[in-house]
Amino acid sequence: LSRKLIVVIPALEEALRLRIRAEAESMGFETLFFDREEDALPALGEAEILFSHFSSLPARGPALRWVCTPFAGVDDFLAPGVFLSPEPMLSNSSGAYGTTIAEHIVMTALELLRRQMEYAEIVRRREWVRTLPVRSLRGSRITLLGTGDIGQEAALRLRAFLPRSLTGVSRSGKNPGNFFDRVLPVRDLDVVLPETDLLVISLPATAETRGLLDAERLDLLPDQAVLINVGRGSVLDARALESRLRAGRLSAALDVFPREPLPPDSSLWTCPNLLITPHVAGNLNLPYTRERIVELFLEDLENYRCGRPLARRVDLRRGY
Amino acid sequence: LSRKLIVVIPALEEALRLRIRAEAESMGFETLFFDREEDALPALGEAEILFSHFSSLPARGPALRWVCTPFAGVDDFLAPGVFLSPEPMLSNSSGAYGTTIAEHIVMTALELLRRQMEYAEIVRRREWVRTLPVRSLRGSRITLLGTGDIGQEAALRLRAFLPRSLTGVSRSGKNPGNFFDRVLPVRDLDVVLPETDLLVISLPATAETRGLLDAERLDLLPDQAVLINVGRGSVLDARALESRLRAGRLSAALDVFPREPLPPDSSLWTCPNLLITPHVAGNLNLPYTRERIVELFLEDLENYRCGRPLARRVDLRRGY
Repeated sequence: LSRKLIVVIPALEEALRLRIRAEAESMGFETLFFDREEDALPALGEAEILFSHFSSLPARGPALRWVCTPFAGVDDFLAPGVFLSPEPMLSNSSGAYGTTIAEHIVMTALELLRRQMEYAEIVRRREWVRTLPVRSLRGSRITLLGTGDIGQEAALRLRAFLPRSLTGVSRSGKNPGNFFDRVLPVRDLDVVLPETDLLVISLPATAETRGLLDAERLDLLPDQAVLINVGRGSVLDARALESRLRAGRLSAALDVFPREPLPPDSSLWTCPNLLITPHVAGNLNLPYTRERIVELFLEDLENYRCGRPLARRVDLRRGY
Repeated sequence: LSRKLIVVIPALEEALRLRIRAEAESMGFETLFFDREEDALPALGEAEILFSHFSSLPARGPALRWVCTPFAGVDDFLAPGVFLSPEPMLSNSSGAYGTTIAEHIVMTALELLRRQMEYAEIVRRREWVRTLPVRSLRGSRITLLGTGDIGQEAALRLRAFLPRSLTGVSRSGKNPGNFFDRVLPVRDLDVVLPETDLLVISLPATAETRGLLDAERLDLLPDQAVLINVGRGSVLDARALESRLRAGRLSAALDVFPREPLPPDSSLWTCPNLLITPHVAGNLNLPYTRERIVELFLEDLENYRCGRPLARRVDLRRGY
């Protein structure tokens, strides 16, 4: 067992660590677990595989041939200097987050449509106000910008609420199955925004997606449209969105921000018509998600061992 | 047009009033609309039909042959003295609220499972805490106590979240379609409660349902179970529930209470693990609900005119 696998994912419970160890050993890999980056450094020198979201680690592993992150987004790994040369392969855990993020999407959409933040204020004041007009997902026109695992799982659940339409928008415009009524390429975004009551953004942070939702595109949305961002903060112009939220023209649920943590002096904290969550839609807080990242990693470990292509390999130039 | 229909539903918008007027007139009924109970009294003396939720009105209409309430619950109409003798028929608007209440159910279930109230507090303090363990509807065992329109519409939506099981419980135990994996009679409730991660109660307030969820039955639920009540407050022992919420054994979303408005000095206002809404899950605040109550009323108006049984007639002794 001279081939070494290093795992640095503090959130992993013992049962999942045992599972990784057992399967990796059966494939001929010695497995070492660390909870802190600095503790992993000595062992990293001879490691062949790293399973971790800490982007500081790959540069400390000159023998690394494969790095797998337990997250779906890989933007932290795209900065210069993250990898030594020759570059190891990078893979992600895309496919582990659809369930938890889809639940976040449905929850926050309903919270905004049903004015749950205002009712929370009413209840905090011990008042009994029952007359705020609410809206429904039923009959709504939903656009999912991003048609990967997250967009698909969201669409599966949103369909049960009987929307008028479920439109996917992706780079390719290819329809990945029966999740969406139709899938359009991103160049048609300006056509679909005016027909969108609920816009769900699950795009990765890439050069292509940066600033995609700028002021002009936000203004294409109909009045009172609802926007949910679970992708990356760089996709939308937060300042332009904030002014439209303050004017009451749009409402939004943001789980991701251009700078995280959201700085304490950010004006977004007190922005009306905005539901903030601290990047938890797809975090490792759900047991099912942690099981899935381990299952997906072990699938690709088997691929790696057999010399097959990794199922979730990331194209470093494309960024996902 | 000597047959008079009186409508006293302040929330109805003009377009729906025009629709009622047009269809009722075509069936030979003169229609009068009022927004305040007292304004309706003079006309009520000769009215044959009353469409209103105000239970004070039927006793002022000696010629009434049919009273339709725009609500689903009829408990206000079951008190002695509501109706003169001979009693008019009573019908409700069961079937209008499934959509809006099902959305409330999914939203509050996810808010509790994903600890959204705690995250709201974290965000209020401008903190960036991302580590609260959360739970999922996926793989959960869901029991719907009440298998009518509300239970069915909730089940349709909950199924899309891939629960392990969807069990209905009703008085008869009859399965009303493909909404549930199985439907059990209420005498089997004690068997199903220990296997219930999420309990949704949509029962009417009747002598049979009063106090059904008492302390002993609450204790049959597994630790950390989630309870949602959108039916009537009389169904559960609020004091027993409160002590279990305060102990952190259960969490709950209550939209209905034994006394409404919930009194300002109620200890429930500050109870942890409790999401309170002021009886708005199925109020008339959603345009779709208002459309449906008018459609359902007009269906039964046609039934009435033709001498056919009313589709939503209430059995006053049974209470729904």
